[in-house]
Amino acid sequence: MKISSTVEWAIHCCTVLAGLPRDLHLTGKDLAEFHDVPHPYLAKALQTLSSDGILKTVPGPNGGYQLARPPHTISLLDIVLSIEGSDSCFECDEIRRRGPSALTQSASYNRPCLIASAMWNAEKVWRRELDKVKLSNLVDQVNAEADPKQLQKGKEWIEGRKFKKPRQA
Amino acid sequence: MKISSTVEWAIHCCTVLAGLPRDLHLTGKDLAEFHDVPHPYLAKALQTLSSDGILKTVPGPNGGYQLARPPHTISLLDIVLSIEGSDSCFECDEIRRRGPSALTQSASYNRPCLIASAMWNAEKVWRRELDKVKLSNLVDQVNAEADPKQLQKGKEWIEGRKFKKPRQA
Repeated sequence: MKISSTVEWAIHCCTVLAGLPRDLHLTGKDLAEFHDVPHPYLAKALQTLSSDGILKTVPGPNGGYQLARPPHTISLLDIVLSIEGSDSCFECDEIRRRGPSALTQSASYNRPCLIASAMWNAEKVWRRELDKVKLSNLVDQVNAEADPKQLQKGKEWIEGRKFKKPRQA
Repeated sequence: MKISSTVEWAIHCCTVLAGLPRDLHLTGKDLAEFHDVPHPYLAKALQTLSSDGILKTVPGPNGGYQLARPPHTISLLDIVLSIEGSDSCFECDEIRRRGPSALTQSASYNRPCLIASAMWNAEKVWRRELDKVKLSNLVDQVNAEADPKQLQKGKEWIEGRKFKKPRQA
C-alpha cells in the first residue's frame, strides 16, 4: 500500500504555484526542472490536477499553470484524491456472504460489513486530517522554516523564467 | 493506493479465530473454505501473521492456526501492518533537495520536509484509529449485529470441522 511518487511531485508543484505572485505562472517544463522530475510523467499529473479544478491552464505560447482556486481552498486531500483517485483504499469484497455460513437472503446483509466499516472509518479520519492542511498553510510554513538561502535561490530562478519567456501582448 | 484483498481476508480469518472456543483451532484450508478464498494465497498470509506473532501454529497432523495472543491485544493495525508491511505509505524522495533551488549544505535540511511531515501526520492518525479496533471488539460487534442464522451456520460448520479431524492423543 503505497502512495505514488506522483503525489509527492504534485504537492510540491502546487505548493510552488501557491507561493507565486498572482500574475505569474509556470510551464510544466519549468515545474519539472524546478523539482528535477521527469517532465512526461509530471505533465500527466498536471493535466489531472487541471481537469480536477485544482490547477488552471494559462493558454498560449507563453502559457502554463496557475492554481485554479485560492491556496486556502486547496487541501492535501484534494491533491491526493486527484492523483490517486477518490475510491476508498479499502475495498470490501463482501466475503462475509461467501462460504458455508452465508445466507441467501440479502436482507441479512443490510448493514455494511463491520470489518469494512472499521477500515473505512480509519480512512475517513485520515482524509479529514489531510483536508485540514491547505496549500496556504504549507506556503506559510515553508516561508517560516525553510533555509532563506533556498527560498532566495528558488525566487531568483522563478523570476528568471519569467524574463526568458516572450511577453504576452 | 489500494489496500490488498489479502488484508480483508486476514482480518476476517483473525476475527473468526478470535471467536473460537479456546480449545479449537482451524487449518489454513478450513479458513480458506470458510471464506471461499484461494487457499495458496491465504496460506501465505497466515504464515506472515504467524511469523509476526499474531497467529500461532498448532503443530501436528491435526494442527492449524490459533491466535497467538488474546483478542483484546490484537488490533486492525497489527494485521494491516503485518500483511502490507510497516513502511509508511508516503515515501519522501527529498525532492526539495533537487533542482535549481537546492543547497549543497545538508545542514539546511535538518528538519524533515514539511510536505512529508504533513503526509506522515495524517498516516499516524490513520494508524492510531486502526489500533483502537481490537479483535475482541469485532467479535462482540459481530455477535451483536450479524444475523443469528449466519452465526449459527458458521458455528455448526466449525464444530463439524472439529469432528472431521482425528483427535490428538
